[in-house]
Amino acid sequence: MSFVIKSTPERAAIWSALFAAHMPDQKIEIWPDIADPHSVEFLAAWVPPRDLEQTFPNLKVLFSVGAGVDQLDLSAVPAHVQVVRMIESGLTDGMVDYVRFSVLALHRGMLRYVAQQREQVWKAHPYVPASALTVGVMGLGQLGLPVVEAVRALGYGCRGWARSRRDIDGIPTFAGQEELDAFLGGTDILVCLLPLTAETTGLLARPLFSRLPRGAGLVHCGRGKQLVLDDLMAALDAGELGGAVVDVTDPEPLPPGHALWNRADVLITPHTASITQAETGGKSILENLQRYRKGEPLKGLVDRTIGY
Amino acid sequence: MSFVIKSTPERAAIWSALFAAHMPDQKIEIWPDIADPHSVEFLAAWVPPRDLEQTFPNLKVLFSVGAGVDQLDLSAVPAHVQVVRMIESGLTDGMVDYVRFSVLALHRGMLRYVAQQREQVWKAHPYVPASALTVGVMGLGQLGLPVVEAVRALGYGCRGWARSRRDIDGIPTFAGQEELDAFLGGTDILVCLLPLTAETTGLLARPLFSRLPRGAGLVHCGRGKQLVLDDLMAALDAGELGGAVVDVTDPEPLPPGHALWNRADVLITPHTASITQAETGGKSILENLQRYRKGEPLKGLVDRTIGY
Repeated sequence: MSFVIKSTPERAAIWSALFAAHMPDQKIEIWPDIADPHSVEFLAAWVPPRDLEQTFPNLKVLFSVGAGVDQLDLSAVPAHVQVVRMIESGLTDGMVDYVRFSVLALHRGMLRYVAQQREQVWKAHPYVPASALTVGVMGLGQLGLPVVEAVRALGYGCRGWARSRRDIDGIPTFAGQEELDAFLGGTDILVCLLPLTAETTGLLARPLFSRLPRGAGLVHCGRGKQLVLDDLMAALDAGELGGAVVDVTDPEPLPPGHALWNRADVLITPHTASITQAETGGKSILENLQRYRKGEPLKGLVDRTIGY
Repeated sequence: MSFVIKSTPERAAIWSALFAAHMPDQKIEIWPDIADPHSVEFLAAWVPPRDLEQTFPNLKVLFSVGAGVDQLDLSAVPAHVQVVRMIESGLTDGMVDYVRFSVLALHRGMLRYVAQQREQVWKAHPYVPASALTVGVMGLGQLGLPVVEAVRALGYGCRGWARSRRDIDGIPTFAGQEELDAFLGGTDILVCLLPLTAETTGLLARPLFSRLPRGAGLVHCGRGKQLVLDDLMAALDAGELGGAVVDVTDPEPLPPGHALWNRADVLITPHTASITQAETGGKSILENLQRYRKGEPLKGLVDRTIGY
């Protein structure tokens, strides 16, 4: 039985070494050099090969190398194959840092100073203390939970929203469509960390923005298809939003010539909020494979009925 | 005896109300409307009136409304007048937020993404975890101490340097010229929060930058005259520094046409890292005046022999 790595050369090298050190009986192959496709039981990939069922007919577990699985066509993955999201500390830490940066940037008006620098203008603007602002985090899972706690530790007011009820000690939480209005109404800086599902596709749009306090900030590090870019720009033009930090777009990469590039009130980063770190990501896969061998449930197992 | 406020109208209004509520026997006057200059014993100002000794011959305490007193010509302040720096939580919190933002921005390569956005380029770059970087804070006083602890809480390695020995639990500290090399040699992101003195004037220059690890970052929120702008640009061009966030310059404001404005590897903010907040700043002055009345030592009293 073989474990196939289909990722960057750096990850392939580090993960091969990790397995050699900690699970020497596990055969490792680096895509596309596969001796016997029938022997492949495990695959770590961002996007698996086409015709997965035909290519690896005996596949048991598909490890996504990223936090999401929305890049996968789950209908092309046989039902008996376990699909696992990446849960690893490097991915979490990267997202926490990114959101901390983005919230501080919006709070302290840094996009305006970037624009002023271009115009060679030296002009300070007043700011409120962090404690006067409430950051609302949508999505309270493996990334959202540490993010909301990290933002609270910066001194901001905090609140969370998720599809279903999540209780977090000391942080008000809201659940489902029926509590979305109340959540948005008290959110000065909105952070989106939702998984991409049918429900969240196109959610970040004008109707939602209009329910935030006027001039609110947006930090979008969920998935591109959740944010309607034309609505984002219209909401900024109308003053409903005051600024945005956007890590994911639809389409992605954002094409040259797109109007979003030229906005002084939007900071665009190229889907780099959080990247699976080779060392910690490899350890996470190794630990999951050890669980599999012992017959224990896998960490990050995807529920196909909800898509994450 | 009168207390004169020479500051912004917002501060004058809030501080007058604070005194009325908590020290109603204290006469308050707003500069320049002074009934009897001989009755003035207390002055809160950023820059006092010219000919201070002649203007207010019976002055007892001069309260600076900012964290520093380097804007003052101390030789024009009579020796018997106590000079007090502003120490207040709003000023500290603002600086902590600013340094958190700046360190995260440099760590995560945000200046490069700002530049890429201008070029409409979507290209992610790898990053190291926060724990792989060491932030070195110069100046371990009322601002530097909370800053170094806040940066440590973000997951960075931390170290501090000051003119004289300061011990901080769990953070390596370095003292004086003789330990400066060792401090700089292990500092990936240098934060300057030093007071302006003869010793620190021009300190942030090529000889210092060259002792940092190659490609280090600089966060300068001390005073403009500490940083030699031509040396900063030369060190960036030579790759000794990888990027900088600069809040204070010499001259200040940075004049239009200055080469620093056009640097993609420098973020310039207009001396806005930390601003005395009217509410908390007023409380700080009030408390110091209560100390004065009781004959207790004032908080933030300036030692004129060292200038801060």
